[in-house]
Amino acid sequence: MAKPRPLSGFPELLPAQRSVEVEVLSTLTRVFELHGFAGIETRAVEPMDQLLRKGETSKEVYVLRRLQDEDAGRDSGIGLHFDLTVPFARYVLENSGKLEFPFRRYQIQKAWRGERPQEGRFREFTQADIDIVGQGELPFHHDIEITRVMLEALAGLSFLPGFRLQVNNRKLLQGFYAGLGIADVDEAIRLVDKLDKLSAETVRGLLVDEAGLSADQADAVLALAEICTPDDSFVARVRALGVEHPLLEEGLAELQELVRGCADLVTDTVRIEADLKIARGLDYYTGTVFETRLDGYESLGSICSGGRYDALAHDGRTAYPGVGISLGVSRVLVPLLNKGVLSADRVVPSAVLVALVDEESRAASTEVATALRRNGVPCEVSPSPSRFGKQIRYAERRGIPYVWFPGADGDAVKDIRTGEQVTADATTWTPPDQDLRPRVVTTQTEQTTQTQETHP
Amino acid sequence: MAKPRPLSGFPELLPAQRSVEVEVLSTLTRVFELHGFAGIETRAVEPMDQLLRKGETSKEVYVLRRLQDEDAGRDSGIGLHFDLTVPFARYVLENSGKLEFPFRRYQIQKAWRGERPQEGRFREFTQADIDIVGQGELPFHHDIEITRVMLEALAGLSFLPGFRLQVNNRKLLQGFYAGLGIADVDEAIRLVDKLDKLSAETVRGLLVDEAGLSADQADAVLALAEICTPDDSFVARVRALGVEHPLLEEGLAELQELVRGCADLVTDTVRIEADLKIARGLDYYTGTVFETRLDGYESLGSICSGGRYDALAHDGRTAYPGVGISLGVSRVLVPLLNKGVLSADRVVPSAVLVALVDEESRAASTEVATALRRNGVPCEVSPSPSRFGKQIRYAERRGIPYVWFPGADGDAVKDIRTGEQVTADATTWTPPDQDLRPRVVTTQTEQTTQTQETHP
Repeated sequence: MAKPRPLSGFPELLPAQRSVEVEVLSTLTRVFELHGFAGIETRAVEPMDQLLRKGETSKEVYVLRRLQDEDAGRDSGIGLHFDLTVPFARYVLENSGKLEFPFRRYQIQKAWRGERPQEGRFREFTQADIDIVGQGELPFHHDIEITRVMLEALAGLSFLPGFRLQVNNRKLLQGFYAGLGIADVDEAIRLVDKLDKLSAETVRGLLVDEAGLSADQADAVLALAEICTPDDSFVARVRALGVEHPLLEEGLAELQELVRGCADLVTDTVRIEADLKIARGLDYYTGTVFETRLDGYESLGSICSGGRYDALAHDGRTAYPGVGISLGVSRVLVPLLNKGVLSADRVVPSAVLVALVDEESRAASTEVATALRRNGVPCEVSPSPSRFGKQIRYAERRGIPYVWFPGADGDAVKDIRTGEQVTADATTWTPPDQDLRPRVVTTQTEQTTQTQETHP
Repeated sequence: MAKPRPLSGFPELLPAQRSVEVEVLSTLTRVFELHGFAGIETRAVEPMDQLLRKGETSKEVYVLRRLQDEDAGRDSGIGLHFDLTVPFARYVLENSGKLEFPFRRYQIQKAWRGERPQEGRFREFTQADIDIVGQGELPFHHDIEITRVMLEALAGLSFLPGFRLQVNNRKLLQGFYAGLGIADVDEAIRLVDKLDKLSAETVRGLLVDEAGLSADQADAVLALAEICTPDDSFVARVRALGVEHPLLEEGLAELQELVRGCADLVTDTVRIEADLKIARGLDYYTGTVFETRLDGYESLGSICSGGRYDALAHDGRTAYPGVGISLGVSRVLVPLLNKGVLSADRVVPSAVLVALVDEESRAASTEVATALRRNGVPCEVSPSPSRFGKQIRYAERRGIPYVWFPGADGDAVKDIRTGEQVTADATTWTPPDQDLRPRVVTTQTEQTTQTQETHP
């Protein structure tokens, strides 16, 4: 068989890279659960009519066919989900009688889109979503709650670059545009959403030419979009533009409450700002909207997006309004892993390699390993009784920090990074906590470690 | 939108059920990592030629097409993987220069097969695989290692019924059949593999009619298949059949070493037996083979299977022999969850509901929650300031064991299962360990809990 080649758009990780991803996912899971979010998974497939009901052909859905049906020209009617929101809305409706509301859930799963692969955009990718859904109604304080949970989760990813969470409110935009007398508010919002790709001048032209705005209206729309403040001072700046509308007031009040309600969580690396150009296109959002930029990787686009959706799930009698936010785990991690900015300090979970004196004493070495595992120390027994120097290099190549030498007169354990060797008892010895699991290292940290290693 | 209905063969879990699955997966992960197995994931898709290269049309592969390509009649050439072994073999070849051998990996992922859904057989299902792969060679002691790791992992799933791991060795079968002078050994093995579905008499007829065995040969083959011992006494029983062949000797020695090497791990609920009718059909196995039955659920078939494969991965210059075993997580769990045999004692991670005095004091209740979370206590704040009785019932419906009452003169926390209420400080209080996370309850345990609840 010829050496297989990677499939473009379907990234795979080597073991050390995967342990970085696992570290990210466990941090997210821990924070989500501390806030009472229940973990669920939904099936990978949805009926095609669900996947396309918002006219989502832009999501490039993968259709599934059984090989046998393919030959017979039969249609399975199912495709792979392209996000976790559509499946979640379906899950809520399907199980509404069995769920307790407000329903807080997190969902960490893969999704698939057949779009052209590029940096941070993949055909298979992992998302981490949190949502809160109510039955009939969902008070606004849950918008603040969901924002706080994601800010806290991002703050836990301390080995990543900083995050800038940009918030806005669709009511603010819609009210402002309506107050200006703009007829096609949705079209104007769709065009303003292009401001991260097109210049203000170009968007101004589109607003006039395509959405039929007057020059004054277009100027006012762009003046609003320029407002971006790290606190609630945006309120005064919006008011200074002199537009009035009840929906604008509602949006201003909500956004102000949100920014104030999260102020205590802001740090140097996790910031929040009211950014009034954020619109989230023509999606299903009805109030709060989120985007997030990763410091130094702005070209990746928004790596964490979401908002309030009041009408996504409705079973004919009851509405299930929700608010949620979705972190693009692959979008953030895969570029950093591929550039080597992030890695792990070992390629196996083992903290200890138990050396093997000769093949006959494999049982004795296995007994040592069993004792270590009983105390929660991951370890492996050397595959062959080669010279101890060779067994130490076996550990080194994998980044295993300790080698254990079973001895007739007592055992010894060596920290192969420092060369320090001490006598030890496998039933009681444990390594320092920071050596128990692979650690995430950034390029900088790695250099520090290497410097230390020159002093054995 | 009409209420959506489940898709047959694509099981989904409610939050409490999912927390049982999470408990199973974390136990498996913990044991695998203690033994130095690195976790990886592979992409969900493989090129169709990979998926079909063993002529695996019986696996009912799902073919993928981009919606746009579908319309244009273009073929993506990819399909969803139907197990984790084929993708793993491809991953090893693709990354052989970047991996350290022997490479121990675990992989817990979904797989898909378009076969007809039935109890324990799904179109989407979760597998947990462990494999050890060598470069060029892989000594036999790794067969023992992989068996011990899975036995230990199964022993950790103490809330499940007992397991019976059945082991055999293809060399033993092949050598015995060759020693009998049977011409088409593979065909004979394929027929013997049907013994779990067909009677011995029927298989005997097939051996004579289809594989061309003499009556004596067929009798000897069935006599071998009847041998099943919990220890290495099978060796004497095989010898008593009077067949001789070098490959038979090799197989007997390996199987004996395996059964002896695992004897210390046998308990009442996790047993191992040499079962000489186990053959694993015409798969890629070349030595040790495994199947596993779940006590009381034998109709599910084998829930954990695998074996030694010496020729699955080969890049033209180097062979990558391996040994592995795969636990059908969905096959075991979904029937038990659907029957209600297994559940969890709460539907949210929250151990505490922080009560809300009035909407104005939401910030104060949130502060209590933040303090509790800092000590690792999952909790949520009451969604509305209803009467405390109503807030307690909110907690009860979710199985949250504690309600926290913030007070001007100090806080109090109530165990709503016993009614006991004590004053407490959110910066220091934690619940007993067993209340920190949802617990798996079996039908029996649940009854016990309910009995306790009648004494508030």
